[in-house]
Amino acid sequence: KKITILPGDGIGKEVTESGKKVLEQIADCFGHDFIFDEALIGHEAIEATGNPLPDETLTKLKNCDAILFGAVGHPKYDNDPSAKIRPEQGLLKMRKELGLYANLRPIKLFDELLEASSIKPEILKGADILFFRELTGDVYFGERGRKDNNDTAYDTMIYSRYEVERIAHKAFKAAQTRSKKLTSVDKANVLESSRLWREVVQEVAKQYPDVKVEHMFVDAAAMKLIQNPKSFDVVVTGNLFGDILTDEASQIAGSMGMLASASVGDTVGLYEPIHGSAHDITGKGIANPLASILSAALLLDISFGLKEEADTVIKAVEQTLKEGYRTRDIADANTPHEKILGTEVMG
Amino acid sequence: KKITILPGDGIGKEVTESGKKVLEQIADCFGHDFIFDEALIGHEAIEATGNPLPDETLTKLKNCDAILFGAVGHPKYDNDPSAKIRPEQGLLKMRKELGLYANLRPIKLFDELLEASSIKPEILKGADILFFRELTGDVYFGERGRKDNNDTAYDTMIYSRYEVERIAHKAFKAAQTRSKKLTSVDKANVLESSRLWREVVQEVAKQYPDVKVEHMFVDAAAMKLIQNPKSFDVVVTGNLFGDILTDEASQIAGSMGMLASASVGDTVGLYEPIHGSAHDITGKGIANPLASILSAALLLDISFGLKEEADTVIKAVEQTLKEGYRTRDIADANTPHEKILGTEVMG
Ligand SMILES: CC(C)[C@H](C(=O)O)[C@@H](O)C(=O)O
Ligand SMILES: CC(C)[C@H](C(=O)O)[C@@H](O)C(=O)O
Repeated sequence: KKITILPGDGIGKEVTESGKKVLEQIADCFGHDFIFDEALIGHEAIEATGNPLPDETLTKLKNCDAILFGAVGHPKYDNDPSAKIRPEQGLLKMRKELGLYANLRPIKLFDELLEASSIKPEILKGADILFFRELTGDVYFGERGRKDNNDTAYDTMIYSRYEVERIAHKAFKAAQTRSKKLTSVDKANVLESSRLWREVVQEVAKQYPDVKVEHMFVDAAAMKLIQNPKSFDVVVTGNLFGDILTDEASQIAGSMGMLASASVGDTVGLYEPIHGSAHDITGKGIANPLASILSAALLLDISFGLKEEADTVIKAVEQTLKEGYRTRDIADANTPHEKILGTEVMG
Repeated sequence: KKITILPGDGIGKEVTESGKKVLEQIADCFGHDFIFDEALIGHEAIEATGNPLPDETLTKLKNCDAILFGAVGHPKYDNDPSAKIRPEQGLLKMRKELGLYANLRPIKLFDELLEASSIKPEILKGADILFFRELTGDVYFGERGRKDNNDTAYDTMIYSRYEVERIAHKAFKAAQTRSKKLTSVDKANVLESSRLWREVVQEVAKQYPDVKVEHMFVDAAAMKLIQNPKSFDVVVTGNLFGDILTDEASQIAGSMGMLASASVGDTVGLYEPIHGSAHDITGKGIANPLASILSAALLLDISFGLKEEADTVIKAVEQTLKEGYRTRDIADANTPHEKILGTEVMG
């Protein structure tokens, strides 16, 4: 099995090292043969080649069996809105070129972290949400530009029937294996693209009569996720709303540093933490590698069908947390100083 | 002073009655002469006239000194994405026609409600955020439609320089009177309209050297609002992101039922709860009227400059909470049964 490692920028590099080490250990322990390769993306790639997704990277990605990705981004571009070449273009182009239209973001709190969140433990306990974020459509990929002498800027929020259908099917199928409840999030009271979204989800629903579907406006969903996270099970939503809601939902898992995601489509799967490049803590060695490690577990499970191996990784994370070890982001007032670990030791 | 009451749909009707009663009491106690008029909007207006914002309503609104509004919406349209006439069109048209481009949403927790939220009290205590949501631009008002035989739907997210400038000025001025910190929220790493937003906010910032500006991506903001609400003071953002983030932020105030908002522009001001028509609880007499009452306080303060009167209303709310009275949404496990009030009694 060929695995391409795409460390990317900022803490992406730091945490992906741990994810890779875990995959190496799994290969050793279970007698698998994983071949690793590495490639450039994002700011790193711009610096080296002028292109946030060099052709060489794309070729490697198209010819491997799974991808472990870190993050992209750099403050340089954030402070300069007029920059024409940006790290994020590499990420978006990669998602599009590889057809990674479904981004799965499981949100589940490890019992040991019940106190790490800003949300009350009794609200969180038992929460277990699986997000399906559409990843290759919406305002991320619609036509955009300037007019009126640069004084007006626009982006196009756009969805086609087949795009909604394929992600809806994935979400309904997942709902069938869980509690048979699906929440579809949109803004159909205002947006035409959301009205199409809702129409299509209503139609697809007919093929899954055993799943109870609920439609919710994105503003209400943003509120309810915090008020009562246990009322959600499987959630399906568009690219932009999914971006916002899953970052918000990271608080349900204690910290963004705990959340893994899988991006799948028709071919190769990509696995990444939902956190970004976090330049404010880059180079300090304090980033939480668990999201990358849990992304590696998703890779083993989804791309390779290695359930036992994936479980072994998750249990190792659980055990480590049970023994009281924490990175800074998931430590609380009761964590003894000597149990607060850096990225490498935690990895 | 002429005040137009626009009850609208669902619980909008129920809570606005309380808001109006409070304005009547204030007029009595302080010797003011408020003349009330009522008009139709939303589903109610569609049923009566076929139009969600009848001309008669618009004429009344253009000729009064302030508007107290309830909510619009009806499940009938939510379940039928293809409906051509919808209650929300009335609300959006009203905002546009009256030039209500700045929506102020103060998020502040009454100390008495520290336990009512799903967020931990120690995270909330002292949180005090003032949102400026742009209200007459963005994807709410850009061109939208269908193509490819109805199988593709699009909306246009669009901002012009002057729209960003005027709301930015309002937010910077407010920041000057508070802790001199402004957070501007966008998605400039992906969206062109957000890059224009960020450029313009950076430019306007030069005129307010005493205010510290921070730019944040909307996904990060959605996370941080829950993780550390105290890190925000004044927040300025576009129409769609503002819709999502302020609903989410309602959890910081204990309940959506506590949050008032003011929509202002160049002429008349409009005041409304941030909650919607909530048809699931309509007719049960349990809706929380405090958001409407606090909207009335904002009306007195902002449109009429009646600070003492506004304070009197806020103190009455505080006192009522202090005496232990609650509506269901803000009650907690310790609230005795007899202190849980319905809409009318609370009003
Ligand atoms: C970096 C950015 C373009 C990206 C997104 O918005 O999709 C990130 O926030 C994510 O969620 O993967
Ligand atoms: C009812 C709806 C159109 C409206 C909006 O999205 O602006 C509401 O959610 C609000 O926040 O006032």
